[in-house]
Amino acid sequence: MPEAGTPPIGRLAIVGLGLIGSSIARGARRYGLAREIVAIDRDAGVQARVRELGLADRVTGDAAAGVAGADCVVLCVPVGAIGAVAAEIGAHLSPGAVVSDVGSVKAAVVAAVAPHLPAGVAFVPGHPVAGTEYSGPDAGFSTLFSGRWCILTPPEGTDAAAIERVRGLWQGLGAIVETMTPEHHDLVLAITSHVPHLIAYNIVGTAADLETVTESEVIKFSAGGFRDFTRIAASDPTMWRDIFLANKEAVLEMLGRFNEDLSVLARAIRWGDGEALHDLFTRTRAIRRGIVAMGQETAEADFGRARPDGETAAKG
Amino acid sequence: MPEAGTPPIGRLAIVGLGLIGSSIARGARRYGLAREIVAIDRDAGVQARVRELGLADRVTGDAAAGVAGADCVVLCVPVGAIGAVAAEIGAHLSPGAVVSDVGSVKAAVVAAVAPHLPAGVAFVPGHPVAGTEYSGPDAGFSTLFSGRWCILTPPEGTDAAAIERVRGLWQGLGAIVETMTPEHHDLVLAITSHVPHLIAYNIVGTAADLETVTESEVIKFSAGGFRDFTRIAASDPTMWRDIFLANKEAVLEMLGRFNEDLSVLARAIRWGDGEALHDLFTRTRAIRRGIVAMGQETAEADFGRARPDGETAAKG
Repeated sequence: MPEAGTPPIGRLAIVGLGLIGSSIARGARRYGLAREIVAIDRDAGVQARVRELGLADRVTGDAAAGVAGADCVVLCVPVGAIGAVAAEIGAHLSPGAVVSDVGSVKAAVVAAVAPHLPAGVAFVPGHPVAGTEYSGPDAGFSTLFSGRWCILTPPEGTDAAAIERVRGLWQGLGAIVETMTPEHHDLVLAITSHVPHLIAYNIVGTAADLETVTESEVIKFSAGGFRDFTRIAASDPTMWRDIFLANKEAVLEMLGRFNEDLSVLARAIRWGDGEALHDLFTRTRAIRRGIVAMGQETAEADFGRARPDGETAAKG
Repeated sequence: MPEAGTPPIGRLAIVGLGLIGSSIARGARRYGLAREIVAIDRDAGVQARVRELGLADRVTGDAAAGVAGADCVVLCVPVGAIGAVAAEIGAHLSPGAVVSDVGSVKAAVVAAVAPHLPAGVAFVPGHPVAGTEYSGPDAGFSTLFSGRWCILTPPEGTDAAAIERVRGLWQGLGAIVETMTPEHHDLVLAITSHVPHLIAYNIVGTAADLETVTESEVIKFSAGGFRDFTRIAASDPTMWRDIFLANKEAVLEMLGRFNEDLSVLARAIRWGDGEALHDLFTRTRAIRRGIVAMGQETAEADFGRARPDGETAAKG
């Protein structure tokens, strides 16, 4: 948390007030991270809602005007729209400004944004690894990033002070900051986020298309595991379409490995190799323990959905 | 909930005091469903723990002696062990007793259990679609089945009174009871539970084996979706090994469909077909809404993990 007094950022401009953008606005206000917050969204309905919620000092649909005079501009639009936004604002950015983003893909974002930024404006790409299955300005909350990781992928030679400004913003929002190259980020996220979303979307689609099992049965008996996948498969369709298209290579590479491993498992089932199954199922428990131990997950049984009602409840 | 007064079951014997068995014991006690509860477990450590927790009136490792005089016997052991248990208790069951089970696979259980039961003893196979990722007698709680579905798959010609006795037990535990054939059960659960578990185990294994991304990175950045899969992949290895071996046909059939659909998705990504992706990602949201509407899932964002801290929190 920053100390009271002068906010570290003068004017903070946020482009795109969805789940992430509106959470940044709320957090920046709550933790005193910016003297002034400008909310920019091309959707008139979102603008109205942001005004009603009082999330910013100024709300506009004009990105070029909105970013003028901003010390820090954070692009929170879907990855597929980010190049167009950069083109729109490029000429209007103030010298010395730092531009960041929150896209779930980094190499494609760097390629789309960097060419549009003038000399004297630094680009520090970022990705807060946090979110929920809900979208829009109402879905955000100020503690969304608390205890979560935010990955920065500044190109080599980026101004150190610019990196520090963006790092300070995320630390102020409660996140833990790590830096890596855009390419490595895209590989890591392909396995920890993109492929999991893809197979979740896929199995929900498979279930919906069955002719031997009705949709009503799928819904009724979803507590056996399926419903966890539906949460992920309820994420924003536009955001996720863009992610898969922008991180094609890494996603297909990781998906290939997933498929190879799944073929081995299917063969073990077909041939009754219980030992191979038991070995894998034992090994996977350790990863879960690591995630819980690192505070990235609740240890509550069933995510705390099945409340033990005051009785003894195991934690493992 | 049953009315106060005479419990509907005289002596209830539970074989296997893990998550499910111990939850039945707790619920039967709490809701007054049995006059006497006998806990049977071959593991001395479990026996000792069940005694300490006071979950039963009598605790024994001797299944044959334990089931003697019981009106209702519920087998709560892994599916692969259920035939051996049935063989062990068959000759010791009282005439008029009803035997049930809680296995996640039904056709294989019917085949394994039925031959060992004497005339005059009814078998009403059951499957409560509920659970958590934790195992053992400490993990259970009396409300585990509350509002969840329990599927009964009585063979044709089963004594109606026996079916009613088992239905009454589950309704007493708070479950909603539905009946279907064992074969249909196995298809439904293959898609709503078994294949989801298989692909969750699989992706956690794939992630653990990568050489380009470290296990520490997978753990740190798991909040992007991966961690939801690890909860499922932390489920009991023996139970799940047995399920896949016992429901081989249906699992491989559903897995084949999953794979076909995944190939189509992979191709859409490779060729940049954003519309196909967006269409699927939009369609899958509806299934989630159905599950939440039916009370089988919380509508809280991120399962309530990311607490909105008193601010406006969207429900969708």
